Amino acid sequence: MNSAENDLSIFERGERASEDYFTGNAWVKFLVPKSEIFNCQIANVEFEAGARTNWHTHGGGQILIITTGSGYYQEKGKPAQKLEKGSVVQIPPDLEHWHGASAEKGLSHIAVNTNAHLGVATWLEKVTDEEYRSAK
Amino acid sequence: MNSAENDLSIFERGERASEDYFTGNAWVKFLVPKSEIFNCQIANVEFEAGARTNWHTHGGGQILIITTGSGYYQEKGKPAQKLEKGSVVQIPPDLEHWHGASAEKGLSHIAVNTNAHLGVATWLEKVTDEEYRSAK
Repeated sequence: MNSAENDLSIFERGERASEDYFTGNAWVKFLVPKSEIFNCQIANVEFEAGARTNWHTHGGGQILIITTGSGYYQEKGKPAQKLEKGSVVQIPPDLEHWHGASAEKGLSHIAVNTNAHLGVATWLEKVTDEEYRSAK
Repeated sequence: MNSAENDLSIFERGERASEDYFTGNAWVKFLVPKSEIFNCQIANVEFEAGARTNWHTHGGGQILIITTGSGYYQEKGKPAQKLEKGSVVQIPPDLEHWHGASAEKGLSHIAVNTNAHLGVATWLEKVTDEEYRSAK
């Protein structure tokens, strides 16, 4: 990331995302810890080009709000959708999916984990290079 | 707003905010309509310099995520807090407060209305010019 892009960042990078659940370089900055008062958890996730989550589900659903860059969101068995600045994705509870950056450009999104009492994330297998390339 | 600032906007401006509930020029773009699946409602709010909400409460609480500019958040009976890019505010249910831009610079924030089944917003009296000036 060059300094001009860095100036556009809204949040600090936060913690390196686990290799167990992500492919490539990604960072997670928690904005609101899992909260009983608000019944949600909110984080910012920054993906370098080519980085993506594993396939996974959210017991309580998740909303993605894309703030910079470009990338993909794919539900199991469906074509990938392109993401860009301003995209909003509504991910229903228990729907298997992945999201991440494009191969050429990074992606940052805010992730709102709703109905946190129903579970935040269940991590599944990696998105293979073949699956990722087919998202183009 | 000049074109350089405009290029930094993440979302379209949306609808003009009601004069009944806001002072000055503000725009509300709904990102996620009130949803039973996610039990929340999410909007982006853009305030011109000097613009602010009325005093109000949220039955289910609200999270503010500031994406650009500078402004204030004030809880009834407490000093105002300054807001800037990257600020996150957790507003508990039924707490009387207001938020808005600084006098010199606009403000944009994402507003996550949590526990939407408990009510999204109850609007109260205007923030007077005297109250607003004392926030500086």
